[in-house]
Amino acid sequence: MKRILIGPPKKSQQLREERLSKLKALPILSSDALSSVAYGYQAALSEMAFIGVAGLWIGLPIAAVIVLLLIALILSYLQVIHAYPNGGGAYAVASDQFGPIAGLVAGVALLIDYTLTVAVSVSSGIAAITTAYPNLLSWTVPLCILGIIGIMIMNLRGLNESASLFMWPTYLFIISIIAMEVIGFIHLGQAGWHYKQTPQFGVLPKELTMLIILRAFASGCSALTGIEAISNATPQFCEPTTRNAQKTLLWLGLLLALMFGGTSYLTYMKGLQVSPNFTLLGMLAQSYFHTGFFFYFLQFTTFAVLILAANTSYSGFPLLAALMARDRFMPRMFELRGDRLGYSNGIIVLSVLAIILVVVFNGQTDALIPLYAIGVFLSFTLAQTGLVKRWFTTRSKGWIWRSAINSFGGFLSAIVTIVFAVAKFSQGAWIVIVILPLLIYFGIKVRRHYHTIANDLRINMAQLKPHAHKTIVIVPIGGINRVVAGTLSYALSVSDQVIAFYVGFDDESIELMENKWSQWNTGIRLVTARSQYRSIVRPLMRFLTTVENWEGAPDHIVVAIPQFVTRKWWHNILHNQTSIMLRTILLYRKDIVVTTVPYHLID
Amino acid sequence: MKRILIGPPKKSQQLREERLSKLKALPILSSDALSSVAYGYQAALSEMAFIGVAGLWIGLPIAAVIVLLLIALILSYLQVIHAYPNGGGAYAVASDQFGPIAGLVAGVALLIDYTLTVAVSVSSGIAAITTAYPNLLSWTVPLCILGIIGIMIMNLRGLNESASLFMWPTYLFIISIIAMEVIGFIHLGQAGWHYKQTPQFGVLPKELTMLIILRAFASGCSALTGIEAISNATPQFCEPTTRNAQKTLLWLGLLLALMFGGTSYLTYMKGLQVSPNFTLLGMLAQSYFHTGFFFYFLQFTTFAVLILAANTSYSGFPLLAALMARDRFMPRMFELRGDRLGYSNGIIVLSVLAIILVVVFNGQTDALIPLYAIGVFLSFTLAQTGLVKRWFTTRSKGWIWRSAINSFGGFLSAIVTIVFAVAKFSQGAWIVIVILPLLIYFGIKVRRHYHTIANDLRINMAQLKPHAHKTIVIVPIGGINRVVAGTLSYALSVSDQVIAFYVGFDDESIELMENKWSQWNTGIRLVTARSQYRSIVRPLMRFLTTVENWEGAPDHIVVAIPQFVTRKWWHNILHNQTSIMLRTILLYRKDIVVTTVPYHLID
Repeated sequence: MKRILIGPPKKSQQLREERLSKLKALPILSSDALSSVAYGYQAALSEMAFIGVAGLWIGLPIAAVIVLLLIALILSYLQVIHAYPNGGGAYAVASDQFGPIAGLVAGVALLIDYTLTVAVSVSSGIAAITTAYPNLLSWTVPLCILGIIGIMIMNLRGLNESASLFMWPTYLFIISIIAMEVIGFIHLGQAGWHYKQTPQFGVLPKELTMLIILRAFASGCSALTGIEAISNATPQFCEPTTRNAQKTLLWLGLLLALMFGGTSYLTYMKGLQVSPNFTLLGMLAQSYFHTGFFFYFLQFTTFAVLILAANTSYSGFPLLAALMARDRFMPRMFELRGDRLGYSNGIIVLSVLAIILVVVFNGQTDALIPLYAIGVFLSFTLAQTGLVKRWFTTRSKGWIWRSAINSFGGFLSAIVTIVFAVAKFSQGAWIVIVILPLLIYFGIKVRRHYHTIANDLRINMAQLKPHAHKTIVIVPIGGINRVVAGTLSYALSVSDQVIAFYVGFDDESIELMENKWSQWNTGIRLVTARSQYRSIVRPLMRFLTTVENWEGAPDHIVVAIPQFVTRKWWHNILHNQTSIMLRTILLYRKDIVVTTVPYHLID
Repeated sequence: MKRILIGPPKKSQQLREERLSKLKALPILSSDALSSVAYGYQAALSEMAFIGVAGLWIGLPIAAVIVLLLIALILSYLQVIHAYPNGGGAYAVASDQFGPIAGLVAGVALLIDYTLTVAVSVSSGIAAITTAYPNLLSWTVPLCILGIIGIMIMNLRGLNESASLFMWPTYLFIISIIAMEVIGFIHLGQAGWHYKQTPQFGVLPKELTMLIILRAFASGCSALTGIEAISNATPQFCEPTTRNAQKTLLWLGLLLALMFGGTSYLTYMKGLQVSPNFTLLGMLAQSYFHTGFFFYFLQFTTFAVLILAANTSYSGFPLLAALMARDRFMPRMFELRGDRLGYSNGIIVLSVLAIILVVVFNGQTDALIPLYAIGVFLSFTLAQTGLVKRWFTTRSKGWIWRSAINSFGGFLSAIVTIVFAVAKFSQGAWIVIVILPLLIYFGIKVRRHYHTIANDLRINMAQLKPHAHKTIVIVPIGGINRVVAGTLSYALSVSDQVIAFYVGFDDESIELMENKWSQWNTGIRLVTARSQYRSIVRPLMRFLTTVENWEGAPDHIVVAIPQFVTRKWWHNILHNQTSIMLRTILLYRKDIVVTTVPYHLID
């Protein structure tokens, strides 16, 4: 089953082959940023939707500010790639410049936003589908879950394989959007650069408070998430990694500015308003192509690119979690690579979290947007200020203009972070503001724990050597049969002190057992106990405590449990339920060695 | 956590106390049948909805036929209680009269329908809520899941406790419906027994084929599911169990006839048509009370009684599964009673299956109805024909009229089953028709497997006695530290043949390990292996195969794995991941004894 879904395992040497050319890196690493064209402007407008047509024109200056912010951030991130060719992005920069705790803050912020990227992109992608097929609206949540599971399986198969498969939708999306823009501008030119439905410019409705405008701006900034993915993944590029990553980032910036700016402008000119059941981008396409082929084509490429956007997080999250696990801020399991060289645990954890988000927020992109992008802009801020510090320390060539760029980028990011936290606090941003410090606290505790344990485990090889101890083996039995005989044989093989332990639910069964036991005449001592709760766990635990308190108690108390080895996998549900329960409970009990002795069923 | 949700454990003696008085049995065991008033008539009408007003009058004769069928079934089931005071219903009767395979067929049919009852009742209950609060419509599936989990927890706490809490909604529902009927008839009387919207009687629209009428009838029969619950649960009644169960069944029949007949008639008189977003019962209440207090009151009692209806299955499914497990048709785990004396495994399995149904059918009652009731009517048929056979065999007092009643009931049930299977086949009934034989096949295989195993395990106590064997212990190590020293100490305690096994991912690490090992100078042999897949599982497996094939190989090959015992529960995610994986894989490997040696972390 695993083999069919995931494919055969790969060797470590294959790790080197998993490098990305620019042509492949752009779709994989930039689909998050590019695909936000599908929801960014809509997220901004929906904050002002209650005003109606009168508020539509304000979308345009907001979009312009977001494009300016994009340019500043692209310039800043070109420097990050230059300064940190080994990747890690905000996490690496912040750790390096301000110490591990600042790194932890940036790392945790990014992990949160990677998770949100998956939830937002998938739900927005499904919205593109339900715009084309409104019948599917009530299936939103199941479709989202299906989408996430699909991406998870792709990623468990390995990055490069995904890349070949995944590069086309992004290019098709870019081509579709640019083509639509060209057609849109020709159409607009023919109409004399003005439609009769184009909203009036310049009259500010008085319902439009500063808070609303800031919220709209903050929501629109969701279009900028994901531009850090390239700098994080610099080492995955083909040689020369730095130059290739920078070129890819420049292309991303150019395309995003063109696509976001163009569609926002055309949406404004067409006077389109947000609708609960249709996406703005879908409506824009419909206004040119009605429900013809191109409309459906665009909905499907939008869907596909948003699924890829979710996939961006599958490059980012597991890699970052592995870096943080290497630094002991996260459980070590994130460091283990799977059979197919991907960080399987990170991939699976990300999928589970995203599915939870989709279910809790019912697959509504608009409901998720307020949680989104705080983390990204917080990490942007840390990365940029970290870089400023670095330029001031190294004073390398061009440090003055370099630090000027990063100061500006950092300043803008900090402003956006604060605007986000304040303006969207009551809409859901508080959730992130609560979870962020909790995760930071968790990271610190994890690190401290690993350090303590590492110190405790270190030994002086000359002093501490393994040596034999006294051992007792306890075998819980439910009767006398072949399995019990086998388990007792094992017990006798490893210790000369063996006790069989029987739990009866009434006095008669206990007496019967004692009689049969003496008939069997094995020389092994039998201890019986009566359970009022039909549970053999409690009496066994009590007995183990008694044994532990014996005078001259053995150093190792072993409980030997039979394990039926079934011939067919599904036979497992017919056996071993008690055995699994006993083992699980005993594993967490102090000082008990648990041994499972296999018995092979003949059927 | 478990304690808070489930409560403290109960002793076996408390089992006797879990008996039901008539006053408690009626709401618990009859809520399924009674609550179907909320969807039965609507299910029938929705089959004819495409015809519009012209088809409405046909609902009335269909309802009349269903009430007649109800009377026949109640009379038949009074006999079942009389003949089988130990409960088990169709399963017991069919097993008893036609042998275990017929019993299995009836049992499996009932298990399927118990599961569907939970899914149908919960989704219909949530529909009552969304009729009152249409804003919640898009949250249907999460609300259904929440409902099922709530009922599961109640039932894991134990039946009688649930009863005290659960009896009121059914009574409130009965009172509400009867009160609404009284008001409705007074209203109708004042209007001269005719409204202007009352549909014309007697004109048969030509779109109305026989197939449509049969479908409407079959869907309406969903109102009769659940009447077998009382006979199944006869032994749970207070003494005298038979008389009390029969009286309760008579009350059920009377109430169901009154409530189903009355609301169907009033719905017809008001000329109400089915709507996708509102229930018929809700619209009927609205026609008398608008959206006043009583409307909301009825919606909530309808919701509550439908949740109780789901609860009926929580009395039936686990008990039946336990009976079938006792007869070895189901995995033994269904026989185990939990801490609180309920059959926990049955309760949990039922909940999981119902949640899957709700998710797959998107919480739509109408989509689930075609799957529903085939199983119930199949088991009705088997129970009635079984009873006929019994009367012919025993020829006890009154056997002639008794067998006449059961023949009639059995005949009607068989007709309904066939109508269901044919008319609804393409609408979803085929799913049940496919799953039913699969489950029967599963049951037969399970029984055969348990018999084979039981024969295999039986021993001649005089011949087979436990005796010691030769043992080798293999300890996989990742380095030299306190944990490894502890695990090796255990290994030395139980065998004089111990091998440490190290897997390196490159040659340098292997050489380093070998040097350190010879420095440590423990006298224990070290075997190293190189892994290209960063996995220690494969090399270990290869090594175990090698050991198994040694000349004079030991009888027991033991793998000792260290287990970190953490001080805080959440520290487990920081450790033991590799250990858990190794243990899981080794447990299913032939002839390997797996031992976990605890190591206590100081933090």
